[in-house]
Amino acid sequence: MSPASTSPTPKTIDPRESIAEERKAPGFPIRELTYWIDGGKKATELKESIMLELERDPLWRVNDNPNLTLAETRERAMKKIRRLADQAMSHPLENTMVRMSIISVVDPGFWTRFGVHFGLFVGALQGQATPAQLAYWMEKGALSMQGITGCFGMTELGHGSNVAGLETTATFDAATDEFVVHSPTLTSTKWWIGGAAHTATHCSVYAQLVVDGRRYGTKTFVVQLRDTKTFELMPGVNIGDLGKKMGRDQIDNGWIRFTYVRIPRSHMLMKHTKVLRSGKVIEPPLAQLAYGALIQGRVSMVSDSANVAKRALTIATRYASVRRQFGDGAIETKLLDYPIHQHRLLPLVAQTFAMIFAAREMTSSYRQLMSELGKLGDATGAKADEAIKNLKETHATSAGLKAFCTWMCLNIIDQCRQSLGGHGYSAYTGLAQAYSDFAVHCTWEGDNTILTLQCGRYLVATALDARKGQPLPANLKYLARAMAQNGAAKTTGPCTGSTAEEVSELRVLEAAWGSVAANAILSAVRAFETGQAKGMSKDNAYEFSSAARLHAARMHSYTYLLQRFVTQVEQSPAALRPVLTLLARLFGAHSAVQHSGEFLQSGFYSGSQIEALKTFVNSACTEVRKDAIPLTDAFGYTDYVINSPLGRYDGDVYEKYFDLVTSLNPQKPVPYFDSLIRPLLERTNESELGPELEIDQEE
Amino acid sequence: MSPASTSPTPKTIDPRESIAEERKAPGFPIRELTYWIDGGKKATELKESIMLELERDPLWRVNDNPNLTLAETRERAMKKIRRLADQAMSHPLENTMVRMSIISVVDPGFWTRFGVHFGLFVGALQGQATPAQLAYWMEKGALSMQGITGCFGMTELGHGSNVAGLETTATFDAATDEFVVHSPTLTSTKWWIGGAAHTATHCSVYAQLVVDGRRYGTKTFVVQLRDTKTFELMPGVNIGDLGKKMGRDQIDNGWIRFTYVRIPRSHMLMKHTKVLRSGKVIEPPLAQLAYGALIQGRVSMVSDSANVAKRALTIATRYASVRRQFGDGAIETKLLDYPIHQHRLLPLVAQTFAMIFAAREMTSSYRQLMSELGKLGDATGAKADEAIKNLKETHATSAGLKAFCTWMCLNIIDQCRQSLGGHGYSAYTGLAQAYSDFAVHCTWEGDNTILTLQCGRYLVATALDARKGQPLPANLKYLARAMAQNGAAKTTGPCTGSTAEEVSELRVLEAAWGSVAANAILSAVRAFETGQAKGMSKDNAYEFSSAARLHAARMHSYTYLLQRFVTQVEQSPAALRPVLTLLARLFGAHSAVQHSGEFLQSGFYSGSQIEALKTFVNSACTEVRKDAIPLTDAFGYTDYVINSPLGRYDGDVYEKYFDLVTSLNPQKPVPYFDSLIRPLLERTNESELGPELEIDQEE
Repeated sequence: MSPASTSPTPKTIDPRESIAEERKAPGFPIRELTYWIDGGKKATELKESIMLELERDPLWRVNDNPNLTLAETRERAMKKIRRLADQAMSHPLENTMVRMSIISVVDPGFWTRFGVHFGLFVGALQGQATPAQLAYWMEKGALSMQGITGCFGMTELGHGSNVAGLETTATFDAATDEFVVHSPTLTSTKWWIGGAAHTATHCSVYAQLVVDGRRYGTKTFVVQLRDTKTFELMPGVNIGDLGKKMGRDQIDNGWIRFTYVRIPRSHMLMKHTKVLRSGKVIEPPLAQLAYGALIQGRVSMVSDSANVAKRALTIATRYASVRRQFGDGAIETKLLDYPIHQHRLLPLVAQTFAMIFAAREMTSSYRQLMSELGKLGDATGAKADEAIKNLKETHATSAGLKAFCTWMCLNIIDQCRQSLGGHGYSAYTGLAQAYSDFAVHCTWEGDNTILTLQCGRYLVATALDARKGQPLPANLKYLARAMAQNGAAKTTGPCTGSTAEEVSELRVLEAAWGSVAANAILSAVRAFETGQAKGMSKDNAYEFSSAARLHAARMHSYTYLLQRFVTQVEQSPAALRPVLTLLARLFGAHSAVQHSGEFLQSGFYSGSQIEALKTFVNSACTEVRKDAIPLTDAFGYTDYVINSPLGRYDGDVYEKYFDLVTSLNPQKPVPYFDSLIRPLLERTNESELGPELEIDQEE
Repeated sequence: MSPASTSPTPKTIDPRESIAEERKAPGFPIRELTYWIDGGKKATELKESIMLELERDPLWRVNDNPNLTLAETRERAMKKIRRLADQAMSHPLENTMVRMSIISVVDPGFWTRFGVHFGLFVGALQGQATPAQLAYWMEKGALSMQGITGCFGMTELGHGSNVAGLETTATFDAATDEFVVHSPTLTSTKWWIGGAAHTATHCSVYAQLVVDGRRYGTKTFVVQLRDTKTFELMPGVNIGDLGKKMGRDQIDNGWIRFTYVRIPRSHMLMKHTKVLRSGKVIEPPLAQLAYGALIQGRVSMVSDSANVAKRALTIATRYASVRRQFGDGAIETKLLDYPIHQHRLLPLVAQTFAMIFAAREMTSSYRQLMSELGKLGDATGAKADEAIKNLKETHATSAGLKAFCTWMCLNIIDQCRQSLGGHGYSAYTGLAQAYSDFAVHCTWEGDNTILTLQCGRYLVATALDARKGQPLPANLKYLARAMAQNGAAKTTGPCTGSTAEEVSELRVLEAAWGSVAANAILSAVRAFETGQAKGMSKDNAYEFSSAARLHAARMHSYTYLLQRFVTQVEQSPAALRPVLTLLARLFGAHSAVQHSGEFLQSGFYSGSQIEALKTFVNSACTEVRKDAIPLTDAFGYTDYVINSPLGRYDGDVYEKYFDLVTSLNPQKPVPYFDSLIRPLLERTNESELGPELEIDQEE
């Protein structure tokens, strides 16, 4: 703590010089990598023009968000709604999508406020209304928010993931040709309904369809909440405000209770299940098609995970390239030059690239699937069976990846925040709020644990089907060899290399991960079969195997990400291939070291090969460190989107951090000096009673 | 999503019944466990009386904290300062300590606001002032906040962990017998100074002592910031407000800049280094003694980790015992009955017990050490050497444990929050704010990564000393066998058991962890030696080995926690021993499965033994589940301290959650309906320009 005697006056370095030197000799063409990440030059340019447009619009100021009250936060969000709604109507769809993907990074709470109407409410109409119903609601202004603002009434106080268990009822009254929507219990109160507290005139309500005393499961009904002229609540509708949340305070979540609210029969969305005037219920041939909308939300959360991680890592690496601490000489050492700091951040950079590429492939296979399903219409037969099979696969994969990537991103945000030291705890450096905003991604649109188990169930079922001769889907080909070995623990033979270089080749890592994932799936199959052998029902046997299923899904997700990464490396321009290969290897090797037990148990790597992998991770970190700033520059976010003085492109962190903090918190007299502090300082010991009262004592 | 046809109307169960049935047949005497956790019946009763006292004091209302603005939050905190300061003066010290430990759970931001004065400012005086100086400041009212409120000026904008690198200077002016305190650069601005923005009249400033142009390292100086009558800033002092933070907004962190501020020479705290009137500097024989104060802070953060984890797990397990979801029959299944939910929560319960016992032992060994050091005085010789050695060990262990336990607790909070599903995202269910408040524990009082590396450095140095014949400290005895084998990888022989029961016996787990920790330390020694063999300096060789050191410190911390757990089990009352033994085994086995690679590499466990460990973890979770509610009941926090409707003792979660949310957020007309929503709804498409303007076109 106190090195005796004369140390020289420490030298300080202009942080702008510190970051500038990081850009002198990038190991790859930065701009080309940006194009590759964004999906081409045109996509990058569109993104850049939209970032600029937002930055220049005073409505879109975000760096003072931390100083707004809840009421101010919500009001500011409402102001932006109109701007965006008008743009959505008049600009090409692609622009709106890019704008929303930027906004989800810059202002996630607002993204939700807007998304509840355009994504969930309109999405429910698009996915569940008949063409005539859709036309009706569009005519009423549902798409453009002219006359209608919507919210999405699924979750209840007592029911989240178990949609089939929702308690709200919609009972058909044949006499009047109406449904009576009702909340029978406290726990059936609609809860967390974004937009309900302040914004919405209508709600797509998920409720139990009841006809003639029979329950037909959860269907969707459009219920008007407020008069569109006066905003008074409609008869039978009660609404409350859920107030403060961990994050995303831009969106006004509320609760809704329905007391015998009557709606016309036509307000049930009848694309799938229909209720006729007679009360006859017609159920759809392909109930699973309703899943499509769920997948879209999940795929977009994989993209969002990648985008938010890009921002977090840009902040953390830029700060690490200018922040100096300890060191030998008169000049302190950059954080980024410490091996441990490289270990903290650079594997996360590799993870982020893995998520970028997984998101891209998920998006394109989702679009392909939807287009196939669209062409299919109401057809049945072999083609329909095939489409259902693909839908199931995409559904399971998207469930697993949504969970895996949102958890990964949440961890990246917090690791990056911690890497900023104390400054990570300021509300003005950007990552504290990023964490609070992002955290809900792990819960909504399917709780991550439940989604991971769903994915695990699919993996077990697929392995069982394959044993019966069904072909394996493309992403699960790695199971084939393991299956051929009759389920024995060893799958792809052990790694034959011994040097750090050999054990970390991409094709070796891919085989390694395939082997571990196959093992994990077969182990979950065994757990399931053990449960069945004990006489459990199928569902109970799945429950019994849940820890193994969860693990299998995680191992599968790593493998899926590595596979996608490898594919993208192979397709990438030659100039980018070396750095992307290095990142893919770092991703695969670092994750393998983190799970070394699995690899040792599967027999793919020996103990000394694991040590060699660790050596590779060390050297890969040293290599990636050289390009850490060019790599995060290539993410291509402007300072406006980064929205953190510590993550500025020019490295001028201290001046700009000081300026931001002082401009947002101008010094004023301490408001409670006279009322509280002066009396504290000037008080004297209370001894007004004088000496203690003495009383006689007997011994 | 839509099970066709008639499912029966679901039954709802009163959640109070659901939790009541959990308490019908506890497997151990709950009250006795509470006594054991708290350290005896008397301690429990004192804790209970203080919880009740706080609950009944309207000043201490906390359940509306989420709805306060930053300004209201700070003002409310200031109101409580006086109450607590008066109590601290008039009540026994033990009461104040228990009160503060409750407050650190109920209201962590206030705890900091109060602790900055009583812990840090007064602590600096106690640790670094001469007896005469201490008497002077006490006389001025420093202890009782009568005339003086203090803050602690260590961190700077550009310097955190590297205290020796602080830039603020205190230059001796022999002509006037004063020090001139000065902030030479922007980065030397004191930053994060709790209490500076609104509260403090004085600051203990850490600055470079400069005498006659020579620098003597960082020393501490008391500098007055504000006039105590008017609260005007003193000449040369500038202060600003750091505004909003991730959490702990009760404390008014600020920045301070000094421009040639003059203070009397006597305001340098001279218990260790002295500056005489002549300018002669006398440095202390035992510079390390200044570490003592650091240790206390770290030990208290281990206790705090245990206490905060107790609250989080009480909320999560109680909610899991009443929340129902999915399931076979008409009644949905309790979350706590799902194996995966047991896996999510119950190992965390075991971790919490491990932290409780580690905190207790750390506290008592710290007190013993301080008492020894106190007796020692200024003596030198063998006794002093021994004391310094103990100090180093306690310093290193406390550093490692502070990091390990705060990270563990942060993870526990977030796992518990996620286990509440969507309700975990509400500000009124308690864990979102708990996370934000707690997160700073991973950074302040020593950044966790740096502390872990310090602990790792101590472990490497100790192993090197032992090789030279120095005796091993008690907590590192496990190194002995590994050392005897001349540093070879195998240490304690491989486990001989094969059943789940055998591989998870406590003595086996203890040996297993000792073996893995020894391996990790020897591996860090090898990395260090490799660095030296490459010609690196000692410091650079340590840097080179940092990933291995970090890992060694983590493995050592697990081992330390398990050892403490075993000791406590052995000393516990017979009635508690079975349940504590089960928890200790779950802690050791679950952590081992999480790090299975280390155990396979060390050769202690084989692959099939790891599988047997997993089987044990599954069955231990099933066992612990039976007593999950009694165990968290035994933590002994009242509903006031739990401060979450989902964690209520009586299980009446839905009614009370609804009541809290609605009472704190009464419904009012939407404030911006007329200004923003109506114009949005009623707008028409803008086409005032009529048809597009046509212009001539040439082909």
